[in-house]
Amino acid sequence: MRSVAVIGIGKTAFGAFPDRDLRSLAVEAIQHALSDANVKPGSVEAFYLGNFAGPSFVGQNHLAPYIGTAAGFESIPCTRFEDACASSGSAFFHAWQSVAAEIYDVVVVAGVEKMTSQSTPRVTEILAGAGDMSGEGRAGATFPALFAMIARRHMYQYGTTREQLAAVAVKNHANGAKNPLAHMRKVITLEQALAGKPIAEPLTVYDCSLISDGAAAVVIVPLEHAARYNSRFARVLTVAQTSDRVALDSKKDITLFPAVKAAGQKAYAMAGVGPHDIEVAELHDCFTIAEIVASEDLGFVVKGEGGKFAEAGCSAINGRLPINTSGGLKSKGHPVGATGVGQICDIVMQLRGDAGERQVARHRIGLTENLGGSGATCVVSILAAA
Amino acid sequence: MRSVAVIGIGKTAFGAFPDRDLRSLAVEAIQHALSDANVKPGSVEAFYLGNFAGPSFVGQNHLAPYIGTAAGFESIPCTRFEDACASSGSAFFHAWQSVAAEIYDVVVVAGVEKMTSQSTPRVTEILAGAGDMSGEGRAGATFPALFAMIARRHMYQYGTTREQLAAVAVKNHANGAKNPLAHMRKVITLEQALAGKPIAEPLTVYDCSLISDGAAAVVIVPLEHAARYNSRFARVLTVAQTSDRVALDSKKDITLFPAVKAAGQKAYAMAGVGPHDIEVAELHDCFTIAEIVASEDLGFVVKGEGGKFAEAGCSAINGRLPINTSGGLKSKGHPVGATGVGQICDIVMQLRGDAGERQVARHRIGLTENLGGSGATCVVSILAAA
Repeated sequence: MRSVAVIGIGKTAFGAFPDRDLRSLAVEAIQHALSDANVKPGSVEAFYLGNFAGPSFVGQNHLAPYIGTAAGFESIPCTRFEDACASSGSAFFHAWQSVAAEIYDVVVVAGVEKMTSQSTPRVTEILAGAGDMSGEGRAGATFPALFAMIARRHMYQYGTTREQLAAVAVKNHANGAKNPLAHMRKVITLEQALAGKPIAEPLTVYDCSLISDGAAAVVIVPLEHAARYNSRFARVLTVAQTSDRVALDSKKDITLFPAVKAAGQKAYAMAGVGPHDIEVAELHDCFTIAEIVASEDLGFVVKGEGGKFAEAGCSAINGRLPINTSGGLKSKGHPVGATGVGQICDIVMQLRGDAGERQVARHRIGLTENLGGSGATCVVSILAAA
Repeated sequence: MRSVAVIGIGKTAFGAFPDRDLRSLAVEAIQHALSDANVKPGSVEAFYLGNFAGPSFVGQNHLAPYIGTAAGFESIPCTRFEDACASSGSAFFHAWQSVAAEIYDVVVVAGVEKMTSQSTPRVTEILAGAGDMSGEGRAGATFPALFAMIARRHMYQYGTTREQLAAVAVKNHANGAKNPLAHMRKVITLEQALAGKPIAEPLTVYDCSLISDGAAAVVIVPLEHAARYNSRFARVLTVAQTSDRVALDSKKDITLFPAVKAAGQKAYAMAGVGPHDIEVAELHDCFTIAEIVASEDLGFVVKGEGGKFAEAGCSAINGRLPINTSGGLKSKGHPVGATGVGQICDIVMQLRGDAGERQVARHRIGLTENLGGSGATCVVSILAAA
């Protein structure tokens, strides 16, 4: 397997865009990435698209050639990858494998979702399809309900507090307020977060990620070719994808995600680094508790200490390990299919030193964690500065 | 790239199964394939699933880990591939690449669809999502309507007749009647086919494939390992995937599919064979005209002669090039996401000499062609006997 580099990144703003269609968002992100990479569409050899539920959100399926041909790709393999909220993480995993294994030399990976054209109850129903509809879904358990159960159990088992959950929200809103592409650029206080409208106890509206439209794209090539295109590339040290049971009630311990643990361990082993080598991370904070659990499962803190870590400011931009400097799914937004590749873009921006007032001090090695459902899919990527 | 072999095949019957859920169909096919391959679930390193529209048909998304964990796969990458009716063809393409490129040694590819729980109008609407919903879909063009336009133009341009379309239906029904796993095991006469209920002129009900439930699966490994598992393996000479515009009205000439032509040419070049080396083929007869057009685009006959080829019996089981000895999508059934891998299973059965009264005389090299939408995705695979 040869080494791989990200030579171009492109994102649309995340938000509610009633006048934009899904395809135009995806094409905009791809064009930004191609332009950043100095690559023409005609040079692209394969197109990997992450999308969770375009057919349900906007009635359009067969999205890979639908978007790919509009972006100027001619006759190449165009494929849609679906793994719930880890859809474009999975697309990135497969694309990375194909370049690492010398199948292709120039590949585009994109992710897109257009969610806001549906009502919130319908969005919640579509998202529930990422869980087990024959069990938890039939019983009426939405994702906020499932993650509320995880939070409750985490509180019971480890003493995690409402204040610690809220600390994650406060931090991510502070970061997102400085991100020009974030959906909700709004600083909140701990008091506001604690007084948020209840969604599913103990989670308030400030514990839940946003329903967003948006797209993200990257161009990847073999590391040995990267400098030909763009001196500001980032190295992909490794990508790992793992799986687990879909239904939450089939898990032995709902305070941890075995798929996240396994993906982290695989990734660390392949990259030859450990959790303490990571200098900046984008974690899948679909709910505040998910960031806490991921920080534990990935070995950044010992099990049960994730809440304290956030509360102590260790995951702030100037903390020991800055997490979600983009604002995370919480504030940047969570257009489901775009999230995995969006995280890659955000980490590459940090590795390049391009994150402006959100720039972290140490930015040699970054990690992204993209989660599907309540932990049935996980993709962990580790990247390094050129 | 190393050579790859199919060491196990498994299919459910195709049909209308109101008492079966999507997951149980997929798991049944996977278990048959694993058992045929003498492989335990714990040895499988990655799971590739083709599914077109599970979320729309049955409300369940995130299908790859949902099915994969039920089949006994633990923690491995489980990914759903969607490329309309070529979804599992695309899954097979990516899986083949991963084994050929030495990423994995044991991989399972499956395809599944559960369509009959929805009404026919709703199924037609879901299928329309494989076309361009912002243009042809909004104008009310269903897939029968789109392929009717292709048929009309083919008649006008090449003198293709209603009798020639009907000849494809008669042949595929004759073959399917002998296939114990086919959805509609019913011999029809030319007169019946011609007098069929009109669906979209000139296509009658006998020109259209079936709405079916079903699943198919294969196990693939490096060729050099194949004999360890199963002496009755088949060699994968190559797989090619291509793309084209989704909207039919964006095509210059609707009597041919550039993606099929390109996939065929790529596959022939990579496999080092030509169209006249192919001894048995499964073509994507979503409509009778699609089999005719594919037989031309793949070079089996010169452009415009596909109808005559079928009418003269050249594509019958005892003809010069037997096509759709399984009964094709027309009679065997077309559970969309299962079709691509189902075709691979049917060709492997022929290469093994296991097709019983449907067995063709010459069966060294076989080809499958799996089409998405009205030609925006195509996957062509060429396989050979051990």
